[in-house]
Amino acid sequence: MTAPHPRLSINQATVKYAPLAEALRVTADAGITSIGLWRDSVQAASLPAAARLLADSGLRFSSLCRGGFFTVPEGHARRAAMDDNRKAIEEAAQLAASGAPGSAPVLVMVAGGLPQGSKDVAGARDMVQDALAELVPEAQAAGVTLALEPLHPMYASDRAVISTLKQALDLAAPFSPATVGVVVDTFHVWWDPELSAQIARAGAEGRIASYQVCDWATPLAADVLLSRHYPGDGVIDFARITAEVEAAGYAGDVEVEIFNQEIWDTAPATAVARTVEGFEATVAAHLGHGAEVRR
Amino acid sequence: MTAPHPRLSINQATVKYAPLAEALRVTADAGITSIGLWRDSVQAASLPAAARLLADSGLRFSSLCRGGFFTVPEGHARRAAMDDNRKAIEEAAQLAASGAPGSAPVLVMVAGGLPQGSKDVAGARDMVQDALAELVPEAQAAGVTLALEPLHPMYASDRAVISTLKQALDLAAPFSPATVGVVVDTFHVWWDPELSAQIARAGAEGRIASYQVCDWATPLAADVLLSRHYPGDGVIDFARITAEVEAAGYAGDVEVEIFNQEIWDTAPATAVARTVEGFEATVAAHLGHGAEVRR
Repeated sequence: MTAPHPRLSINQATVKYAPLAEALRVTADAGITSIGLWRDSVQAASLPAAARLLADSGLRFSSLCRGGFFTVPEGHARRAAMDDNRKAIEEAAQLAASGAPGSAPVLVMVAGGLPQGSKDVAGARDMVQDALAELVPEAQAAGVTLALEPLHPMYASDRAVISTLKQALDLAAPFSPATVGVVVDTFHVWWDPELSAQIARAGAEGRIASYQVCDWATPLAADVLLSRHYPGDGVIDFARITAEVEAAGYAGDVEVEIFNQEIWDTAPATAVARTVEGFEATVAAHLGHGAEVRR
Repeated sequence: MTAPHPRLSINQATVKYAPLAEALRVTADAGITSIGLWRDSVQAASLPAAARLLADSGLRFSSLCRGGFFTVPEGHARRAAMDDNRKAIEEAAQLAASGAPGSAPVLVMVAGGLPQGSKDVAGARDMVQDALAELVPEAQAAGVTLALEPLHPMYASDRAVISTLKQALDLAAPFSPATVGVVVDTFHVWWDPELSAQIARAGAEGRIASYQVCDWATPLAADVLLSRHYPGDGVIDFARITAEVEAAGYAGDVEVEIFNQEIWDTAPATAVARTVEGFEATVAAHLGHGAEVRR
């Protein structure tokens, strides 16, 4: 077996049922050198233990999923959400420091949907902007990049009122690109007629903090959250989008993040092997080898 | 019972299982004065018979659903699609001539998804542009407006590569607004951060050919096509969007078009009564009485 592309990273969600130690092991065993982690798994192990496991694995850390869920009116619930985001910033900083050289102190942020009972999508978007402004000083102090992830518009009401790369970039605009960036996730943005232009803009503004890949296929799963597929198993043009992200100057790791019950029901090592196969066939050829000197 | 708002129109899909005669009857019986028809139902009755039934009903005709499905490479299949669209143009013209005064010669157009095996969404969009250019002279001669309907991005791969109002307006731009317009369907566009601006643009360009309303609620139905709800049963801000469409100068009928298995499983008269109730509570107050003199 030849080694997978050096920029491939397994997002832990792809092997959701593997505890942290196993996720790290199956990733490293496949010759992959980077992993993106999820907070529930990190917290289940405890942050210090997770950081040690990560350090021992020799893997780079490519992102922490996820902060956000900011669309809560002011009050106790919003304060709790902000405190939780502060904790997530600390976690991302510590994990990035514990990963192999080239680890990225990136915290993926999902905006949150409409507040309960609300129909005010513009107001919900303002809540995201306000929350960012509040968190930026702490993220900056911790050296963490808050990476806003636009989600597919089918999640706009219950998960993320930020639906396009343009919106995410507009929200990020007031802040330093070192502190507020964006995620380009092919599943969420492939359909967007403005995608090429906004990827180029994101590059010019230095804001691409993460590039995540998985495929789109129909019919969608009954639970639309679980409709993600291995690269190559759907209709997304990874050659084009990857070349655009590359041309925009992104030189970091590329995560494969898949929510799919069938994939979760396979052995983690099998899911990782299939991920490598799909990535090598559809994405790898369009990627450079990344920054010679990483952060 | 007070009469429903004079601009309310029942889109026949809302009472999908009612044959044409019954759909016309339950609509008129509810005091509604307008209906949008579907081609399968018109053809099941035959076009001349459908036109007679419509004329006898005394209802206005607000649109024919639907033409389009243009994303087919050149060859027999594309020629068949174009011929079918020519037939749809004739049907729309004849039905509009048979409806009560104020009927609208509008043919709703759904673009079509990615061609089988293709990942080229930009190429598919070009196929839509080419097809429009081919059909415009015939639509113009027939006095029919081809109304491009952007569909929610969750249908981009299998149903409509036109996902936003901006895209639809850009596609329509080369043609006269009397011949190529757009549909604003709340279900498809409510999430769009550019919506207000694009509705205003559509109005300024004289392109709003149809305004359709139904609501968005989660979780989505297992078949995402069937996730539409009565106005008021979801999260869409009909007050805002309706006011924007009104301010943009749209003075035509407002169709309620709902695909929902539970609603289809109720008696048509019940579905119509519930439609009136939802429309009156959420949409009607934000509508004027329309053009004094209709087309």
